[in-house]
Amino acid sequence: MAHIDLPPGLPGIRGPMAFRPETARPLSELADVLLHGPSTLTLAEREMIAAHVSSRNECAYCRDSHAAIASAHCGDEALVARVTVEGERAPVSPKLQALLAIAARVQEGGRSVRTEDVERARSQGATDLEIHDTVLIAAAFCMFNRYVDGLATWTPTDPASYRERAAVVARDGYAAVLRAVGVTS
Amino acid sequence: MAHIDLPPGLPGIRGPMAFRPETARPLSELADVLLHGPSTLTLAEREMIAAHVSSRNECAYCRDSHAAIASAHCGDEALVARVTVEGERAPVSPKLQALLAIAARVQEGGRSVRTEDVERARSQGATDLEIHDTVLIAAAFCMFNRYVDGLATWTPTDPASYRERAAVVARDGYAAVLRAVGVTS
Repeated sequence: MAHIDLPPGLPGIRGPMAFRPETARPLSELADVLLHGPSTLTLAEREMIAAHVSSRNECAYCRDSHAAIASAHCGDEALVARVTVEGERAPVSPKLQALLAIAARVQEGGRSVRTEDVERARSQGATDLEIHDTVLIAAAFCMFNRYVDGLATWTPTDPASYRERAAVVARDGYAAVLRAVGVTS
Repeated sequence: MAHIDLPPGLPGIRGPMAFRPETARPLSELADVLLHGPSTLTLAEREMIAAHVSSRNECAYCRDSHAAIASAHCGDEALVARVTVEGERAPVSPKLQALLAIAARVQEGGRSVRTEDVERARSQGATDLEIHDTVLIAAAFCMFNRYVDGLATWTPTDPASYRERAAVVARDGYAAVLRAVGVTS
């Protein structure tokens, strides 16, 4: 049971978003710009960074939600499952490996990111904007994960419901989450 | 020196906000709703929660910024300095002590928040909305702190500049930060 009295039947972050529409709007917009907006990182790459950070924070709802969205984008559930758990050790491009390494450092703490971590990403072709967005995606999931688990929200355990929600978000972006919980933007 | 090429002369989060206006807008709006919007928690109480979480994350820029804003609101720099470092052990109301204890749990990780932490806050008069906002303020500063330090932004060391910026934010809210870095809302 959640720590506070949330609207029933809404999984994960959707409960507190319906409870507090004033904060739901900027949270949704932030996720949409970072994960669904224009970027030289692919949609799947950004969602895999989010899923990996969520896995490191042991937030099952965010981990499974963003892994499902990444899979909806790239169609490779097995690869996404490996990246979610293994991060930079998964068989992805050297650039994405370097960005996953930065994300893992950010998850530990902002001060853990070293100059050599950033130089490695740059040497693999990452731009300043890609490095910026990786740091902010990782930082944002250190917020989202704590928001979801800090209120002890409901975590569904059936993969099918994650796939269903993921298909909608992959297609329509994060404004779809606001609509799903009845918040008008 | 920052890890990426940020606009010069802007301290802390202001550099990356000027660098990436698309994410600056929802970040600023989130801070404004939580810290400056209508609430049954005082402006100083909310800023002290932010400063304490930032202190626990060893983010000097956010710690000193939000301590200065809290002091601008309540006029008691000595008390704010104690709450920033000591959290729930500082001489504040039992309700704020209980909320600071929840914030410290969230800083450790979302799963660290226990039912008894929430019951303690409720027994001291905290509402569900106050508990929600405390969890989200603490979670949000786990993001802001990592954003600021993960990019190795510039941390000024003179208290005077923190007081100057704090006076403006305390008066005008967080939209003032957007204006200060040239982002139109």
